[in-house]
Amino acid sequence: MKKAYKEMSKEELSALQTELKAQYEKMKEMGIKLDMSRGKPSIEQLDLSSPMLDVLNSHSSFKGSDGMDLRNYGVLDGIKEAKELFAELMECPTDHVMVGGNSSLNIMYDLVARAMVHGIGGNEPWIKQEGIKFLCPVPGYDRHFAITESFGIEMINIPMDENGPDMDMVEKYVNNDPKVKGIWNVPKYTNPAGVVYSDEVVKRFANLKPAAPDFRIFWDNAYAFHHLYPDNKGEILNIVTECEKAGNPDIYYELCSTAKVTFAGAGVAALISSPANLAEVKKQMTIQTIGHDKLNQMRHVLFFKNAQGVHEHMKKHAAILRPKFEAVLNCLEEELGGLEIGSWIKPLGGYFIAFDTIEGCAKRVVELCKGAGVVMTPAGSTYPYKKDEKDTSIRIAPTLPTPDELKKACEVFVLCVKLASIEKYLQTA
Amino acid sequence: MKKAYKEMSKEELSALQTELKAQYEKMKEMGIKLDMSRGKPSIEQLDLSSPMLDVLNSHSSFKGSDGMDLRNYGVLDGIKEAKELFAELMECPTDHVMVGGNSSLNIMYDLVARAMVHGIGGNEPWIKQEGIKFLCPVPGYDRHFAITESFGIEMINIPMDENGPDMDMVEKYVNNDPKVKGIWNVPKYTNPAGVVYSDEVVKRFANLKPAAPDFRIFWDNAYAFHHLYPDNKGEILNIVTECEKAGNPDIYYELCSTAKVTFAGAGVAALISSPANLAEVKKQMTIQTIGHDKLNQMRHVLFFKNAQGVHEHMKKHAAILRPKFEAVLNCLEEELGGLEIGSWIKPLGGYFIAFDTIEGCAKRVVELCKGAGVVMTPAGSTYPYKKDEKDTSIRIAPTLPTPDELKKACEVFVLCVKLASIEKYLQTA
Repeated sequence: MKKAYKEMSKEELSALQTELKAQYEKMKEMGIKLDMSRGKPSIEQLDLSSPMLDVLNSHSSFKGSDGMDLRNYGVLDGIKEAKELFAELMECPTDHVMVGGNSSLNIMYDLVARAMVHGIGGNEPWIKQEGIKFLCPVPGYDRHFAITESFGIEMINIPMDENGPDMDMVEKYVNNDPKVKGIWNVPKYTNPAGVVYSDEVVKRFANLKPAAPDFRIFWDNAYAFHHLYPDNKGEILNIVTECEKAGNPDIYYELCSTAKVTFAGAGVAALISSPANLAEVKKQMTIQTIGHDKLNQMRHVLFFKNAQGVHEHMKKHAAILRPKFEAVLNCLEEELGGLEIGSWIKPLGGYFIAFDTIEGCAKRVVELCKGAGVVMTPAGSTYPYKKDEKDTSIRIAPTLPTPDELKKACEVFVLCVKLASIEKYLQTA
Repeated sequence: MKKAYKEMSKEELSALQTELKAQYEKMKEMGIKLDMSRGKPSIEQLDLSSPMLDVLNSHSSFKGSDGMDLRNYGVLDGIKEAKELFAELMECPTDHVMVGGNSSLNIMYDLVARAMVHGIGGNEPWIKQEGIKFLCPVPGYDRHFAITESFGIEMINIPMDENGPDMDMVEKYVNNDPKVKGIWNVPKYTNPAGVVYSDEVVKRFANLKPAAPDFRIFWDNAYAFHHLYPDNKGEILNIVTECEKAGNPDIYYELCSTAKVTFAGAGVAALISSPANLAEVKKQMTIQTIGHDKLNQMRHVLFFKNAQGVHEHMKKHAAILRPKFEAVLNCLEEELGGLEIGSWIKPLGGYFIAFDTIEGCAKRVVELCKGAGVVMTPAGSTYPYKKDEKDTSIRIAPTLPTPDELKKACEVFVLCVKLASIEKYLQTA
């Protein structure tokens, strides 16, 4: 059992600091250049889907099931075959599915933009309602927060634990404050903490009684099929079913995408919501576009055939990603276990590991890493306005580098965590 | 020389009406079912581009020229190779090009939406400025007008002649009224009239002195390469160069797209504007998306290689479209020439023929056509708010049917024009 840093005397810490500083200098000399900052799939993962580019070629039939030519104009909300694939994947009726372009982020942005300008469900446009707010479970996805920030929507932090957001707080805000219009969620394998929302949390979401009639849950199910352990999957309750059971059929917008199933730049995104919500979206969307790329939708359908095809494919992703996550997790455990200078959850899926330093150290760790050639996501970026008041949250993205690179990068990282923690203890001692 | 209807006596008209009505009843019995309403490419045109689906397959290199993997995230404003292709096509510097997704309509919608919510060039968001207006040369493209209508922007009709919009009127509005924020244009082969803006018109556009600092010309160059007679092309001055010469480098947004070059549903659209305008767009766009489909951009680049490749390809489109346009134009000339009950311009490119009836007849012609099994674009749809006060404007879309079908459909059409005109003359006689 190692001794926790907080149990060490100032002298012990100083001696250790001298030793670690020497190690740090050595590492700097090694000229390492590694990147654990980006949640991007690796080349091996992308290669899994390259055969998808062969399923449509100049000799293909370009007829959709209803006889329409997929190369021509038309079909605002996605081809029938793609709707059926997503409906099976997301376990909802086909009439709850709209299939879009290559980006679920774009769908979410447009949902917020339309609510700002046109309003939701006949209510006043958000831009005309002063002081509107979104709830933001933290740590969360920086691009969600960037959307609400760009529209001047006030963001309120909601703490999360291993079951999901603090639902007492969510209910207090949503059920009482008509200015609260939405909440961002990544319900399965949260970005970055890897949390899987518990059944109770999902049920409490579905049973919200919003003070605002134009309140919506943004349910970004970005990692719905992105398991690391196909035999030990994270499972969440189905938001569609739960909201219907609760008599709240229109309260949610669920998003999903194949960006991290096939190609990050050329996948297909979908919006899952009630037929009433989709009708409202389509009414406005028909002004914006004639339709999305139906050929790429059909490529996905022909490549996967059905949900089972996607799940088999995701097992291959898991086989590539598991050793990467484990390289980081093993290093964290071996090097930091027992020192009480950091905590993390071992994720069962998704794209990130969230690491918490002791208070006031995250920025310094990232800075030290950079000095030794390891790029981390900027500290604070998982909080609204990039403000992590306690300065503890670091996002580790292990998908892009190789396991060997990750091992090396993680050695630098843990050393920097140790150094930053000692600095902090010596300052406050 | 045929006798003009307006020269005919009431008795002559009545006798002719009886005869034409009998013909109409016969046509109804034939059970015709034809459609001249939609500006969609035909299957033969789409087939021209099917080999584009072979240029990328599972054995391809997916590296862009800067080493980036085209299958992964990244590149907000289009891959370098696609920018170069569009820059050559639109005859502008590469730093004036942003390459997007499959829809130039979507780019235009988003430009207006961003101006509404965020403003242009640091000016107040349009939504906070009461009573803003757009100028709409008529007849024009219904989907342009639908965008401004959806945002509650007041639309003002600007008449057009064979040289383009009435520039005295455009200058009067733009240079004096700070509420006038934009003008919709299809400068080459206008939709639907096929007008090619004259050099003087383009120069006067470039030399506008807008009262509003956030005024923009929307220059939808949708038919830039869409000639019917490759040896007798419509040519317009380059808006980029002219605006720069006039000291108005930021006054325009030019759009173009391969929707009617490759696939209507799976082409690539581009925005051409000053680097300052593009920087502003990108700053907001980076919140909305990580980037568009780079594989489809590369497909276009590999298929065409350069601008010459596009122009050669467009000659094949022209060869398909020419007989279709000529089938309609010949029928109009043969059947209506000298009757003075309709006028049209013979277009040199684009997707439509605009037909003008005598006043108060367009709706009736479309109704009669429908009764005999021929679907036309609803009368009035080429005007803002779908209001064609004089009720004269009909859009003919000859691209989708075969030449034989067009001949048949046009026979119905001219008969209906004759019938509606006689009805009108008899009413007012």
